[in-house]
Amino acid sequence: MTITEDLACYCQKVAEQGRRASRQLATLPTQQKNDWLQASAAALEANVDTVMAANALDIDAAPSFGLSDAAIDRLVLSKDRIKAIANAMREIAALPDPIGETISGSRRPSGIEIQKVRAPLGCVFFIYESRPNVTADAAAICIKSGNAVILRGGKEAQHSSRAIVEILQDTCEQCGVPEHAVQIVGTTEREAVGHFLSLGNLIDVAIPRGGKGLIELVSREATMPVIKHFDGNCHVYVDEAAAIEMAKEIVLNSKCQRMGVCNAAESMLVHSEVASTHLPAIAAALTEAGVEIRGDAATCKIVPEAKAAVDADWAEEYLGPIISCKVVESIQEAIEHINQYGSHHTDAIVTSDVERARQFANAVDSSAVMINASTRFNDGGEFGLGAEIGISTDKFHARGPCGLAELTTYKYVVQGSGTIRE
Amino acid sequence: MTITEDLACYCQKVAEQGRRASRQLATLPTQQKNDWLQASAAALEANVDTVMAANALDIDAAPSFGLSDAAIDRLVLSKDRIKAIANAMREIAALPDPIGETISGSRRPSGIEIQKVRAPLGCVFFIYESRPNVTADAAAICIKSGNAVILRGGKEAQHSSRAIVEILQDTCEQCGVPEHAVQIVGTTEREAVGHFLSLGNLIDVAIPRGGKGLIELVSREATMPVIKHFDGNCHVYVDEAAAIEMAKEIVLNSKCQRMGVCNAAESMLVHSEVASTHLPAIAAALTEAGVEIRGDAATCKIVPEAKAAVDADWAEEYLGPIISCKVVESIQEAIEHINQYGSHHTDAIVTSDVERARQFANAVDSSAVMINASTRFNDGGEFGLGAEIGISTDKFHARGPCGLAELTTYKYVVQGSGTIRE
Repeated sequence: MTITEDLACYCQKVAEQGRRASRQLATLPTQQKNDWLQASAAALEANVDTVMAANALDIDAAPSFGLSDAAIDRLVLSKDRIKAIANAMREIAALPDPIGETISGSRRPSGIEIQKVRAPLGCVFFIYESRPNVTADAAAICIKSGNAVILRGGKEAQHSSRAIVEILQDTCEQCGVPEHAVQIVGTTEREAVGHFLSLGNLIDVAIPRGGKGLIELVSREATMPVIKHFDGNCHVYVDEAAAIEMAKEIVLNSKCQRMGVCNAAESMLVHSEVASTHLPAIAAALTEAGVEIRGDAATCKIVPEAKAAVDADWAEEYLGPIISCKVVESIQEAIEHINQYGSHHTDAIVTSDVERARQFANAVDSSAVMINASTRFNDGGEFGLGAEIGISTDKFHARGPCGLAELTTYKYVVQGSGTIRE
Repeated sequence: MTITEDLACYCQKVAEQGRRASRQLATLPTQQKNDWLQASAAALEANVDTVMAANALDIDAAPSFGLSDAAIDRLVLSKDRIKAIANAMREIAALPDPIGETISGSRRPSGIEIQKVRAPLGCVFFIYESRPNVTADAAAICIKSGNAVILRGGKEAQHSSRAIVEILQDTCEQCGVPEHAVQIVGTTEREAVGHFLSLGNLIDVAIPRGGKGLIELVSREATMPVIKHFDGNCHVYVDEAAAIEMAKEIVLNSKCQRMGVCNAAESMLVHSEVASTHLPAIAAALTEAGVEIRGDAATCKIVPEAKAAVDADWAEEYLGPIISCKVVESIQEAIEHINQYGSHHTDAIVTSDVERARQFANAVDSSAVMINASTRFNDGGEFGLGAEIGISTDKFHARGPCGLAELTTYKYVVQGSGTIRE
């Protein structure tokens, strides 16, 4: 873990170790991966004191990083929180192994038999901020899906993360998991990230989890593919065929159930036919919940407490108690507005009309389209993935919640009996 | 097609048109896409003279581009070749529509019902060299999979490609396909490629097809994901449990059935236990077929006509009548050699031992692993994809032969009945 070589050499060595470990992990039996998850969970619980001592160092240093009280609270590891981390690892152990799954197969006229089989991506570079529970979580998801992982956590949680990783590494040997299956970058130097991102020949995918600045940096510099978790400017469209009560419930839940998350609604579109009936009721409920409404001219006419929206409001991810609101003349206008200003994350329609529900679902270009359901359902847990490493806002490779399967690729295994091509 | 604005503005406009067309294509009924394919095929045949006149301009200009006779031959469009292009479009019309396919689905305890549905990627930027048949082929594959396409062909085939695209565009209106579903870049300026590659906000994927230089350029400059078709350094490993006749047949077919293609074998590994029996027979057959053998010391001892291989030979894609050959002490050594020096494209084992076949299939990190079959089978046609836009050497998103499904993503369509999150 100490850095004796210069930084570039150090990063190269870590990546090469990750690459080699990934080759072994690709063929590691399911039982050994699960044994490691169970043993790691037990070891975390057995070493609560060590982890909490390391965590205390991070807490002590937190004010010097200018962390807010809320951020410090997220950093604190109690006995209960460590138990929760261990239990999350046990849950991942209980999930089916994605590796080796036959996705499809066929027998061809030439005589060959083809199987398309799920295989690991290889070596994952995971860059994240603050919360130390992510350290164990990311390691567990990567190993279960047969990938080696290089973890680069935030400096605010460096002691906690290292203590956790050392415990996970100690259980590798006893379970026959490769020594370098889980590595943590042993330096908080910012330049290390750039070095790793240049090693596209050794690292198969980079996954940044954190603020926009981090994700943009990684996207710009990475020489390997990136699974991005960008912003969520999510909409609820209240169709002319929406029941007023259902519309109110879904807007309220989408906006208010948890405000600071990517699948919370930031904008509401209301069909002009029902604007005068539905908008006042929905607006009153939002106002009561402390949400500020920023509306277009038509909205402001109907809702006196609304402030006038400016153009930038349509693209804004507030992550707080504000919602933009626009009256539209047609479902087509709603769809075009969402495709233009939205972030292709999660968008909902409230309607009793089956044909318009279908039109909306097909035409809105988002990772999840909700029909008469809250935007808050776009989530790995709610979707039943069992574990989640993020919600991809890309279309390529993985879209929406990313669980174990999204950290895999496939290969074709072709069998013949001396079969040659004519 | 004429360029009046400056180049950057022109590229921006083309990309915006492609983006808008992609929104319409995403919901275009299957029948309209198939009608367009059939009508385009018929129009190509009806306008054979126009296409051949345009092609004559390319042939005339070919010597000024320094094209070889073989390259000029690939450029020539005869009546028969145009008929073949039309028939390829009809075959794509006959394939199932990938869009709208439900990949999986579930009902969750919360009451929501989730469908994971196949959807188009959006707008494809396709960059290719020379052969004009690729123009129609790429357009057909993209439209059938619901994507808009911006074609950038080589200057050597510019007149032929434009004539073909104009015919395809003429049939758009009559079939209700968006006007800008298929566009061809109306300039041969090299800078245009760079402009398009900077438009990651409008273009969803770039697909280069051509030489290494082109692919490297696109990979380096693209701000959108790239489906790469890199080199194929494919191996045949002759295991100690390989029957001599089968080994000979598969090596010969993998190397010689067609030499200049990415799934041809470039290297042969032979287990030491059978080197003295199998190598002389295989080498004799290769030599008879005009193939030069470059061997390690052990090979050269057994095969007198072999030349000594240097280190660079193990990573070389000859694309011609040369094969490298190494004697290995174990299947593990073969696997490690392939994972280190190979290009993760296609690698074969010849063995009668079921356990070693399985070990090889699991551990070799390639898009296709062949067991007792020729490497030449890694091909969209042989795999039954029906149409192929390339063979991806990436692991991310698409691996191996890329047909219609590989030009798609998915979205989650979630239905509730006013369902909110607790």
